[in-house]
Amino acid sequence: ISSTYIHQAQDAQREWHRRIAHLLQQRKLPEIGWSDTDIETLLLELARMDSNNFPGNCGVGERESRIHSQLVYRRHFGLGHGIGRSGDLCEVQPKAAGSSTLNKLTNALVLDVIRQMGVRSCQDCFVVPMATGMALTLCLLALRKLRPHAKYVLWSRIDQKSCFKSILCAGFTPVIIELVSKGDQLDTNLTEIDQTILKLGPESIACILTTTSCFAPRAADDLVGVAKLAQSHDVPQLVNNAYGIQSSKCMHLIEEMGKIQSNHTTFVQSTDKNFLVPVGGAIVAGFDKSWIKQISQTYPGRASSTPSTDLFITLMSLGIQGYKKLVQERKSLFQELRTKLHQVAEKHGERLLETKGNPISMAVTLSRVVDPDGQGKQVSAIGSMLFTRGVSGTRVITGKDEKSIEGLQFSAWGSHWNGTQTPYLTAAAAIGMTSKDIDLFVKRLDKVLTHVMAPKTHVANKAC
Amino acid sequence: ISSTYIHQAQDAQREWHRRIAHLLQQRKLPEIGWSDTDIETLLLELARMDSNNFPGNCGVGERESRIHSQLVYRRHFGLGHGIGRSGDLCEVQPKAAGSSTLNKLTNALVLDVIRQMGVRSCQDCFVVPMATGMALTLCLLALRKLRPHAKYVLWSRIDQKSCFKSILCAGFTPVIIELVSKGDQLDTNLTEIDQTILKLGPESIACILTTTSCFAPRAADDLVGVAKLAQSHDVPQLVNNAYGIQSSKCMHLIEEMGKIQSNHTTFVQSTDKNFLVPVGGAIVAGFDKSWIKQISQTYPGRASSTPSTDLFITLMSLGIQGYKKLVQERKSLFQELRTKLHQVAEKHGERLLETKGNPISMAVTLSRVVDPDGQGKQVSAIGSMLFTRGVSGTRVITGKDEKSIEGLQFSAWGSHWNGTQTPYLTAAAAIGMTSKDIDLFVKRLDKVLTHVMAPKTHVANKAC
Amino acid sequence: ISSTYIHQAQDAQREWHRRIAHLLQQRKLPEIGWSDTDIETLLLELARMDSNNFPGNCGVGERESRIHSQLVYRRHFGLGHGIGRSGDLCEVQPKAAGSSTLNKLTNALVLDVIRQMGVRSCQDCFVVPMATGMALTLCLLALRKLRPHAKYVLWSRIDQKSCFKSILCAGFTPVIIELVSKGDQLDTNLTEIDQTILKLGPESIACILTTTSCFAPRAADDLVGVAKLAQSHDVPQLVNNAYGIQSSKCMHLIEEMGKIQSNHTTFVQSTDKNFLVPVGGAIVAGFDKSWIKQISQTYPGRASSTPSTDLFITLMSLGIQGYKKLVQERKSLFQELRTKLHQVAEKHGERLLETKGNPISMAVTLSRVVDPDGQGKQVSAIGSMLFTRGVSGTRVITGKDEKSIEGLQFSAWGSHWNGTQTPYLTAAAAIGMTSKDIDLFVKRLDKVLTHVMAPKTHVANKAC
Amino acid sequence: ISSTYIHQAQDAQREWHRRIAHLLQQRKLPEIGWSDTDIETLLLELARMDSNNFPGNCGVGERESRIHSQLVYRRHFGLGHGIGRSGDLCEVQPKAAGSSTLNKLTNALVLDVIRQMGVRSCQDCFVVPMATGMALTLCLLALRKLRPHAKYVLWSRIDQKSCFKSILCAGFTPVIIELVSKGDQLDTNLTEIDQTILKLGPESIACILTTTSCFAPRAADDLVGVAKLAQSHDVPQLVNNAYGIQSSKCMHLIEEMGKIQSNHTTFVQSTDKNFLVPVGGAIVAGFDKSWIKQISQTYPGRASSTPSTDLFITLMSLGIQGYKKLVQERKSLFQELRTKLHQVAEKHGERLLETKGNPISMAVTLSRVVDPDGQGKQVSAIGSMLFTRGVSGTRVITGKDEKSIEGLQFSAWGSHWNGTQTPYLTAAAAIGMTSKDIDLFVKRLDKVLTHVMAPKTHVANKAC
Repeated sequence: ISSTYIHQAQDAQREWHRRIAHLLQQRKLPEIGWSDTDIETLLLELARMDSNNFPGNCGVGERESRIHSQLVYRRHFGLGHGIGRSGDLCEVQPKAAGSSTLNKLTNALVLDVIRQMGVRSCQDCFVVPMATGMALTLCLLALRKLRPHAKYVLWSRIDQKSCFKSILCAGFTPVIIELVSKGDQLDTNLTEIDQTILKLGPESIACILTTTSCFAPRAADDLVGVAKLAQSHDVPQLVNNAYGIQSSKCMHLIEEMGKIQSNHTTFVQSTDKNFLVPVGGAIVAGFDKSWIKQISQTYPGRASSTPSTDLFITLMSLGIQGYKKLVQERKSLFQELRTKLHQVAEKHGERLLETKGNPISMAVTLSRVVDPDGQGKQVSAIGSMLFTRGVSGTRVITGKDEKSIEGLQFSAWGSHWNGTQTPYLTAAAAIGMTSKDIDLFVKRLDKVLTHVMAPKTHVANKAC
Repeated sequence: ISSTYIHQAQDAQREWHRRIAHLLQQRKLPEIGWSDTDIETLLLELARMDSNNFPGNCGVGERESRIHSQLVYRRHFGLGHGIGRSGDLCEVQPKAAGSSTLNKLTNALVLDVIRQMGVRSCQDCFVVPMATGMALTLCLLALRKLRPHAKYVLWSRIDQKSCFKSILCAGFTPVIIELVSKGDQLDTNLTEIDQTILKLGPESIACILTTTSCFAPRAADDLVGVAKLAQSHDVPQLVNNAYGIQSSKCMHLIEEMGKIQSNHTTFVQSTDKNFLVPVGGAIVAGFDKSWIKQISQTYPGRASSTPSTDLFITLMSLGIQGYKKLVQERKSLFQELRTKLHQVAEKHGERLLETKGNPISMAVTLSRVVDPDGQGKQVSAIGSMLFTRGVSGTRVITGKDEKSIEGLQFSAWGSHWNGTQTPYLTAAAAIGMTSKDIDLFVKRLDKVLTHVMAPKTHVANKAC
Repeated sequence: ISSTYIHQAQDAQREWHRRIAHLLQQRKLPEIGWSDTDIETLLLELARMDSNNFPGNCGVGERESRIHSQLVYRRHFGLGHGIGRSGDLCEVQPKAAGSSTLNKLTNALVLDVIRQMGVRSCQDCFVVPMATGMALTLCLLALRKLRPHAKYVLWSRIDQKSCFKSILCAGFTPVIIELVSKGDQLDTNLTEIDQTILKLGPESIACILTTTSCFAPRAADDLVGVAKLAQSHDVPQLVNNAYGIQSSKCMHLIEEMGKIQSNHTTFVQSTDKNFLVPVGGAIVAGFDKSWIKQISQTYPGRASSTPSTDLFITLMSLGIQGYKKLVQERKSLFQELRTKLHQVAEKHGERLLETKGNPISMAVTLSRVVDPDGQGKQVSAIGSMLFTRGVSGTRVITGKDEKSIEGLQFSAWGSHWNGTQTPYLTAAAAIGMTSKDIDLFVKRLDKVLTHVMAPKTHVANKAC
Repeated sequence: ISSTYIHQAQDAQREWHRRIAHLLQQRKLPEIGWSDTDIETLLLELARMDSNNFPGNCGVGERESRIHSQLVYRRHFGLGHGIGRSGDLCEVQPKAAGSSTLNKLTNALVLDVIRQMGVRSCQDCFVVPMATGMALTLCLLALRKLRPHAKYVLWSRIDQKSCFKSILCAGFTPVIIELVSKGDQLDTNLTEIDQTILKLGPESIACILTTTSCFAPRAADDLVGVAKLAQSHDVPQLVNNAYGIQSSKCMHLIEEMGKIQSNHTTFVQSTDKNFLVPVGGAIVAGFDKSWIKQISQTYPGRASSTPSTDLFITLMSLGIQGYKKLVQERKSLFQELRTKLHQVAEKHGERLLETKGNPISMAVTLSRVVDPDGQGKQVSAIGSMLFTRGVSGTRVITGKDEKSIEGLQFSAWGSHWNGTQTPYLTAAAAIGMTSKDIDLFVKRLDKVLTHVMAPKTHVANKAC
């Protein structure tokens, strides 16, 4: 074999080791994504540094990362020690140098992405292997230690159950700040927040819990306005930025908020909704390194490394260019969806609501749907009619739903607002959506609307 | 192709569908484990029932279980929706019939195992995708709702940081119940528990937090004794049964406890330590269906399905016979380890402590180790000397460590007891251990002890 | 869980079974490709029908498809029996209903593709788990049985070693039919073929071995012209259509040839070169069912199922639309490559040869490269200079190479023609190529040419 | 993280690179097998050295190992170039340094195993990606070149179709040497071989084709006796050692044969039957390096790397100790099977044949089975009755089967002997069998025999 070819093969090996070293030193997401094989090889290399994979190791402890099933072993690439230690979710595990490196690296890559997506001032973040709701609870439990006299959480209403339940789970009393309507859109009620702080006293308030990404016609909360109030009263703000990383608008709001109030400000986001991984992780981030560290230290014990690993694989596979491309596509699909929904709405005598403050979700009225019982049954049926036709993810709001959660009452549940009169349907242009999704949806929606609005039809679920 | 052969092939298909149907109907762990291929095929079949895998589905929501990376998709078998809904960790997800079935099925199989391992009266359980510490926190947060006036958690001391931190994380004040020594062993201090309840008042106490599996010379807590006190004062007991499923003794204690007090009694165990899966899950179980449901309803939002899936794969792969065999092997290895450690201890003039109440861990004194500075440095070094020689999992206790956790002070940290004088080393015979592990460990320990006890050696780490 | 959702999940299952049934009945490639998970699940289902995967099977034969390594088992999806029986490569194996079905199905899908790519009259084909060279040998061995008195194979010269060696391996004496040059292009020498048949006598000739896909400036052989001669003398034609399925031109030639002579006509193609799978398989096809069957019956014993399985996966993954798209893209990249090579050639005072009869490969002269020793060393070096720069697949022809293969001499080896004077370099636009490949290649070629043609440089390999 | 732990992790990496270097230098099978993860990581590392996996590579050839399907890519670990070059199956491919290394390494490991299993004098071998029958054909084609005047192959009869067809496929005329019966056993007819050589003339004979592993009551051929004759007449011997590597007796015969005649002696064995991999490969071995090279050079073109890769994985996974253990187990299971079959035979008034010369297969008479039509139908039915009960691999020989293969007639086909009168059933104790297989088989056989021998039953397939 000629030396030319041997040189090329050796070059390939050297280039590989160089790429790994560069990643570990820079801790930045590569511009161009890696191949699956490269990512998997790196994971296997890291696993080799965990004690359970040492040749000749003998374990006499109660947890030695012994894995019985080869199927399980393989899906975890031999990584079994999880992340964190009893003291801190971000701490290094002595027995698991590989797992620990992977965890730290993933957090660094996520920080890089958050900054590149617009929150330049973000100082620290970590992936927590719990979905957004429980991650909010974790932040609230950390706030309890910070503010031992606090009893209340001021909550700018968003009709999403797990957000509300995260307050209850943490043992706080939620104080609901109803939104104000402005045209079609629902906005943050700054006045009421201010008055409520004064009424209850700042020290009795753990934080103000606001939300960016949400279903229309609610807008992203006015994070900057809230930050000004919060800063003046020295109350922290906790932001539910569930699927906001994918939106430059949400990220811009967060960046601006951070400029006004950075101490103890936290923003939490879902890994699955922003990064196209399975459900199971959230990212806790902030502008204040020591505060983020305090939160990670609140967590007792170790945790699953799967959400981190999924995120690591996905980010490395996309590269920063790949992720930016996805975000860009989403933005243009949002416009496409608006345009096409507008056309369908018009055709059926309905209206696409004006909700400029919501960069992801949109709503179409269902005012002309026949509603013989006045209880919105026929309106509700549209959701399952769409699901039967292979459309998932729409939400139909009747404005008639009363909801009680652990003793608290909500009118017109789902609409974020007691005053909702007109039923509507929401749809979102979220990351990972394709143009084909939009076409199929609009076509199917058109058919369903044609059906339910036909003057002579009453309950038509079966016939169509 | 002759009809004989075709019949056999068809039989094989029918038998396969029969096995699936039987599993879904009976919800019991099969006697004999399944092959990896069978398990994987079943998972793929279940995934096909989730909406993200429907052919022709179009998603217009903000979470559609879109998975970007094929590597991630494959390791999750196409299951991306996680488990639970905003309201309840055990609730079914409309969009994910497959994931929901898998989750329910796994919980049922785990219940079957818990019963077969000795807690016959167990009424319900669920896998929570958080490690033991955070799972204890979740139980404590549920207890807060149950007992809104409670401030304290009575904690029978165990020097394991995440157990202690689980109380702090939940926002309770821990009240430390020091153990009592009885010969070599450390036992539950029932008298002090009783007096403390009387002093603080039962309604101010969220629960008594006890532990079964722990490092020697601590014994498993006297769950029955505590249950009697707890029952008489109407205070719940929460048991940290971290790696106790593998021990018939621990399971027997829990079963007996349940006979005395079943209301609001909870026992929590690790999935990795009992079932040889990667870190990341815990099992919350009890004798009272509605209470277990209340805990699962405390959890806000969805969660990772990975710990459930790992457990499902492992249990199905083992079958009940396979798991019982592992448990049986562990029991006999426990005796083997005791015998061999006893010999090494004697050889070096040390002693294996008498700790009948601890069925998994054991301790050997290190009284003769040269300790020139009186601070136990040389004793401590034994741990890293063993790790360097490929032994993981031993713990060396000097009796000199002072520890402060969020303002609370512990003397002789690691030993569960302020009065510890003699240094010692612990080792455990946990599930998955092999006879070869024991041989290697004992040989290496012998070498290290020979070294550190040599009269003329001072700091000998490098030389050996 | 509402019945709407259950219905959808059940629908998904039914749809899945319907798709499988449809595939097995129609035996046509689906329009739209399947997902990897669907393909894998189908393979696992088929494997379940092989006796080695029957639950409760006991094997007392010498080959029971026992597979030791799980890694090997998984990569074969549990399929271990291979394909074929002692009597016939296409025969069904009694113990392996699943493997046999897969084999038959793959052959049917390939037949469908061959027809859709232009050889409408193709009657039968099968995948043989040997690369093209050995597959040609197999056809020649079948021809030996058909024509027991034959000694010679007439071979329209193509400078590709394994094609030539396939004749020697089969024990025939090759008779080289030199090409005729026509402008830049090298064409089939029909006159010489005719005269040679007459000279040797038709019955002494096993077949005429022609080639479609080849390196420029050789054109695809005149299959129709040869078929007319072959038919008139009753000599079979065997076509080496190595990578011709990807080219509508090659497929058209074959279809037309079949119209003139169908008896015992065979065309052989590579699976890797046409279908982007790893090396290892070839497809033997023809216009005469019984003849193709005779070839498959010539093969003694069973064989690896891997090339079939790879092809099955790839075809199912592409669907007919996917494959047609790839073929279409290749066609337009061929034009793109011509255009860009033409520009580079002109820039350096070289010429892109006119070779209309070659739809895949093209050649650029290297007449101006400094060649101090007159032996073409510097010209040859261009190949390794390009490889060092990450360009693989070019061939540099000096016109000076003498080659001897088992005693037979070839002048200007590599150029298909003794008369080659001007050195040149070939490049191909083959299936799977991307526009990026072309850009990189042209850029790098430009640099290398700039270098080697610089007036003052002699051997410059290191300096650049 | 303490330096102790970092050192351990670095040690683990160093140890890994040391193991790879050692393997590549020594080219011997490791004593102890490697884990699947280690093997897979090594394969991925090798793949990185193939040009298709170079980052930044652009391909402009017609075969660039482009792989469309990720499923296919993964199952081949990124290795797509196959093995061999146009000139030689063992030649290195310039574009594929990794694949080439893997191929060479596998051949070296196999040579190591062959020697360790008893053929110490073996000088060279290679894995050919074709099953045994076609591999024999390849050897015969090489012999044709060596002995251009040869027309015949002397074939010591073995009733296995693909062995016989390998002669026909290669274009030779088989000369059948009938066996001689000696007690129950069938032995090589040395006298007839000698006379036939004299009659036909040595130069007209390509080789003597003998067999070791075969179905009882045939014994392994007398390789040594044949070698003496062959050597004296200067005719090569080709041995079909299909599943003989697993038997020390077969390997001993081969070693002894090699001492008498080494020139142009070849022995061929199946990879699947000896090494528990899927069907698809054979090993060609001999005592004469240059002759084995000639055979590998006969093969035209490249070939699938799958059989090599499967074998590499399996051997590395077993280690030499693992393989020796399997061989040892087989040996003792052979005795166990004999003992138990003897008992069943006696119970039913039948007899286990005395066949000391066959170390793997054994035969039980079926003389008492009711055979109303005298055509052996009922006897034949026993085979499918056993298959229906989950027994695969038995062969039932009626002694009544006439068989014609391409014009040649065989009486009592399946029994290797025209004179077979008593029907019988064979079973084999082959590598990978378990004690459980034997128990199930013997139990099921007992039932079936009880059934077919019951005086009043005629065709009872359904009733039992």
